[in-house]
Amino acid sequence: MKSKFKHVGLIAKQGDPRVADTLLRLAELMVSFGCKISIERRTAANLLIHHNFPTCDSAHLGETCDLVISIGGDGTLLHTARSLIDHDVPLLGINLGRLGFLVDISPDQMHARLEEIFSGNYLEEQRIMLIVSIGNARGPLRVNHAFNDVVVHKWEVARMIEVDTYIDERLLNSMRSDGLIIATPTGSTAYALSGGGPIMDPDMDAMVIVPICPHSMNYRPYVFDGNCEVEMRVQDSSCPHSQVSCDGQISMAIQPGDVIRVKRHPKRVRLIHPPEYNHFQVLRTKLRWGEHS
Amino acid sequence: MKSKFKHVGLIAKQGDPRVADTLLRLAELMVSFGCKISIERRTAANLLIHHNFPTCDSAHLGETCDLVISIGGDGTLLHTARSLIDHDVPLLGINLGRLGFLVDISPDQMHARLEEIFSGNYLEEQRIMLIVSIGNARGPLRVNHAFNDVVVHKWEVARMIEVDTYIDERLLNSMRSDGLIIATPTGSTAYALSGGGPIMDPDMDAMVIVPICPHSMNYRPYVFDGNCEVEMRVQDSSCPHSQVSCDGQISMAIQPGDVIRVKRHPKRVRLIHPPEYNHFQVLRTKLRWGEHS
Amino acid sequence: MKSKFKHVGLIAKQGDPRVADTLLRLAELMVSFGCKISIERRTAANLLIHHNFPTCDSAHLGETCDLVISIGGDGTLLHTARSLIDHDVPLLGINLGRLGFLVDISPDQMHARLEEIFSGNYLEEQRIMLIVSIGNARGPLRVNHAFNDVVVHKWEVARMIEVDTYIDERLLNSMRSDGLIIATPTGSTAYALSGGGPIMDPDMDAMVIVPICPHSMNYRPYVFDGNCEVEMRVQDSSCPHSQVSCDGQISMAIQPGDVIRVKRHPKRVRLIHPPEYNHFQVLRTKLRWGEHS
Amino acid sequence: MKSKFKHVGLIAKQGDPRVADTLLRLAELMVSFGCKISIERRTAANLLIHHNFPTCDSAHLGETCDLVISIGGDGTLLHTARSLIDHDVPLLGINLGRLGFLVDISPDQMHARLEEIFSGNYLEEQRIMLIVSIGNARGPLRVNHAFNDVVVHKWEVARMIEVDTYIDERLLNSMRSDGLIIATPTGSTAYALSGGGPIMDPDMDAMVIVPICPHSMNYRPYVFDGNCEVEMRVQDSSCPHSQVSCDGQISMAIQPGDVIRVKRHPKRVRLIHPPEYNHFQVLRTKLRWGEHS
Repeated sequence: MKSKFKHVGLIAKQGDPRVADTLLRLAELMVSFGCKISIERRTAANLLIHHNFPTCDSAHLGETCDLVISIGGDGTLLHTARSLIDHDVPLLGINLGRLGFLVDISPDQMHARLEEIFSGNYLEEQRIMLIVSIGNARGPLRVNHAFNDVVVHKWEVARMIEVDTYIDERLLNSMRSDGLIIATPTGSTAYALSGGGPIMDPDMDAMVIVPICPHSMNYRPYVFDGNCEVEMRVQDSSCPHSQVSCDGQISMAIQPGDVIRVKRHPKRVRLIHPPEYNHFQVLRTKLRWGEHS
Repeated sequence: MKSKFKHVGLIAKQGDPRVADTLLRLAELMVSFGCKISIERRTAANLLIHHNFPTCDSAHLGETCDLVISIGGDGTLLHTARSLIDHDVPLLGINLGRLGFLVDISPDQMHARLEEIFSGNYLEEQRIMLIVSIGNARGPLRVNHAFNDVVVHKWEVARMIEVDTYIDERLLNSMRSDGLIIATPTGSTAYALSGGGPIMDPDMDAMVIVPICPHSMNYRPYVFDGNCEVEMRVQDSSCPHSQVSCDGQISMAIQPGDVIRVKRHPKRVRLIHPPEYNHFQVLRTKLRWGEHS
Repeated sequence: MKSKFKHVGLIAKQGDPRVADTLLRLAELMVSFGCKISIERRTAANLLIHHNFPTCDSAHLGETCDLVISIGGDGTLLHTARSLIDHDVPLLGINLGRLGFLVDISPDQMHARLEEIFSGNYLEEQRIMLIVSIGNARGPLRVNHAFNDVVVHKWEVARMIEVDTYIDERLLNSMRSDGLIIATPTGSTAYALSGGGPIMDPDMDAMVIVPICPHSMNYRPYVFDGNCEVEMRVQDSSCPHSQVSCDGQISMAIQPGDVIRVKRHPKRVRLIHPPEYNHFQVLRTKLRWGEHS
Repeated sequence: MKSKFKHVGLIAKQGDPRVADTLLRLAELMVSFGCKISIERRTAANLLIHHNFPTCDSAHLGETCDLVISIGGDGTLLHTARSLIDHDVPLLGINLGRLGFLVDISPDQMHARLEEIFSGNYLEEQRIMLIVSIGNARGPLRVNHAFNDVVVHKWEVARMIEVDTYIDERLLNSMRSDGLIIATPTGSTAYALSGGGPIMDPDMDAMVIVPICPHSMNYRPYVFDGNCEVEMRVQDSSCPHSQVSCDGQISMAIQPGDVIRVKRHPKRVRLIHPPEYNHFQVLRTKLRWGEHS
């Protein structure tokens, strides 16, 4: 087999002992495919301490590899996708334990699925990523990425927060709630779903704003085109007990006067799947569609 | 003033006595602008019986006019938009009584707003329209249009219906419910909203499927790109008490074996608004956003 | 064993061939317990044609028996409960195929469970039943019962209906919707759940009104005490395309001027369960609580 | 007029300058009715510093007065009701600014309404209050009251919490969510409504559990009788970022092993209303029922 991918980066979930075995098997499989491999430094330090694979910073995986494989759950892939978005490197997810929405190859199918994929027989999905920036006139912007969602929310529970939301500089509404979720189609099956949002086709170029426990009954999730820019202004009195989260993995404080802007990243996350991948099948399995009690 | 539009078609809601006065004022205003006008035949027959404006079939308004004005409510504009979609003629709505989502010029502002618009100072929105076709191997297709929504639903109440839904030929799910709504962004503030659907930005090229009273709790509205094609197959035993509706204005029966296909029309509905038109303002007014009790 | 019950009535779902075998086994089991049995006349005529068990009208089962066993699904038990509510006879449900919310003894456990129950080791639940009456000044009342729900709904789909609802003679609201569901706690896991209603503890003395696709976003299910009386007045223009259903099994037309009254029946439905019966376990099984995908 | 009430306690919202004027007018009105009055100490210290009305601890108002009037919003009445629940003293609410669900007499109607009420012409509602206790084997119980709701929730946002809920010692379910709201009928129009709960008739003896952003789609609000006792056990790993709130006004930390118990208080909150009080009218006004856009 002449491998479609020449240099593969490997990155794994931290702190899960089941990962080491899968990671080692995967590294050996890549070698047997004739690929050069690089292991993300922390992954190697924690999991492959007795082996001598080349290691590399997460940031450099994207520069040097033509495929990065993430081993873990959806959370690990979210992290990997955010850190590699500036490069055009495609991603592939090996799930540990149970099927994820993003990581759809299980360790026991790994050999067969990867053989197929590395021979060039695969599907590539392109999904949008968000850029969130928080800033005001007094200081520099703080910028982060989000693959699932940007959430503006209170962290002290007795209070609600009041947020003015603008889409492309026009006021959409002023809302009192526990928070607002701005989700990508990828994130529409994550926290936004718990908040009552719709499910979106994963390759759509669109976002949805889902209010969390809105104070009024009149609000509904709002879906809009991916080329729109969202701006949120938290009322000053709400700022001390508000913050912004990206994918539930990064938190940023908000100061009075801060403007929170969310827009689509110019690049797409490229997800590699086996050729028989069917997103609707994943939805039906994960959401138990079709099981009538 | 040199009018931007040369030949204007007028079509009005049937059976509402308030229309005649507005229609006549509008016709005279058009004449004062130097426009040629054509009145839709039924409109003229019912409302302008003592006047001698040229009349014309609804189908021909689209061929000859470079603007069609609809007088009535959102329902009148839905009907007008469906019947003129094959032509590229822009539409403008005068509302009677109360603000609609589609008809946003009130009779008392008519003179000023139209003067502005006819001088070339206006906004044009492009919105998607749906084509629904019902057919099977035995007979010809029945085809209709829908600007808000295509609804597959039971009409006998004690029964639920079971529908298999495919998007681009892949099974999305099999669902037991009272029915399914396929809505455009325009229709997302109509029946789909009552069914629990999200609100969609009106110029999006997207659709949403909203289940009506689904038998299982696992279903959520599903949003997808406007270039997808939806296919629905109603289980044979459900057909005798099922039907398909377009915009709540047209009904079509379903036979066992029928396949219901919904896709975007290749042309867009062109809606003309005054320059200060703000869709979010209409939403805030109609949905009472920002009124905290 | 000295049987707790002396005279047992048997009533079965019509038109399901699996019933006959279970029914015969059940009849023989009752005889072996030393019970006198009576078979509901239609059940006997359709299912036990070669046997000579005594038969009896459904109405008389309640007068002569001290236990009635319903074989089928929840629908059969709903029917049985409505027809026997005027008598104080306890009911027990054998489910065919799959677990129901009401029928919780499967045919293969029948022998063991009934032995236990007939020895006096059982739980008895008391649940409320509704009486619905439709009337106006010109004619007699039409009266029916409902164990799950009374539904006022449109049957022609393009229209919504407008209903004024009164609780204990005070106006609750005027609502435009596809219909209204008045459910008992028993019915809270049936159609009302599809409409977005809460789940209610089955032995509560309470009802809930659940709007179906309300035209406004401001409405929510309304829960109230079982001693309240509900009155609904359908706007005259809505009557021609409205009707009232009981448990989805009985339909009644509505005329302009009709007043629809719903109140709790003075008697309770008495449901007999095995001693280890746990309603929450049934909920968790039927609604798949605790299965995290 | 011979006053129905002899000794009236007055308690007002802190920190709102509009209160002082209303409070003074109210005190003078009570004197003119021939009533003895006592001002809650903090209220007097902050608002009536130049007057010499007798003052008294909040706890003693309940012992000595036969009516307590709360001036402020619903929040002030919630606080007053919790602190006086052990006494049988009826409460009356004067609202500042806008109509509340609980405080329904506006300052400008105060004179006329109170004259009516003090002459004995009034309605008295009885509403349930909750007792929440948190404890484990190692230490004493911490006990608080809640008139609206007891909320178990995370306060660190990236995490969900996992809670096992028992009703009368039987497991209802294990749920992963942002939190759980246990609401009284009074609280059903407060935070529980934002979480998607039903509205409950205020004099019902019942509670509802409303999950906040549940991780699974299968959960619905659960309504049960007021004589049930709820027990919640937060999974140990969730405890460090969980807490319990009462009416959004009191917070209590949770330790691993803690058991949170919620039950109805043996006494009822007695609310006094003008004779023409109509709860449904308040609902229609506050929730804008009947306003069709």
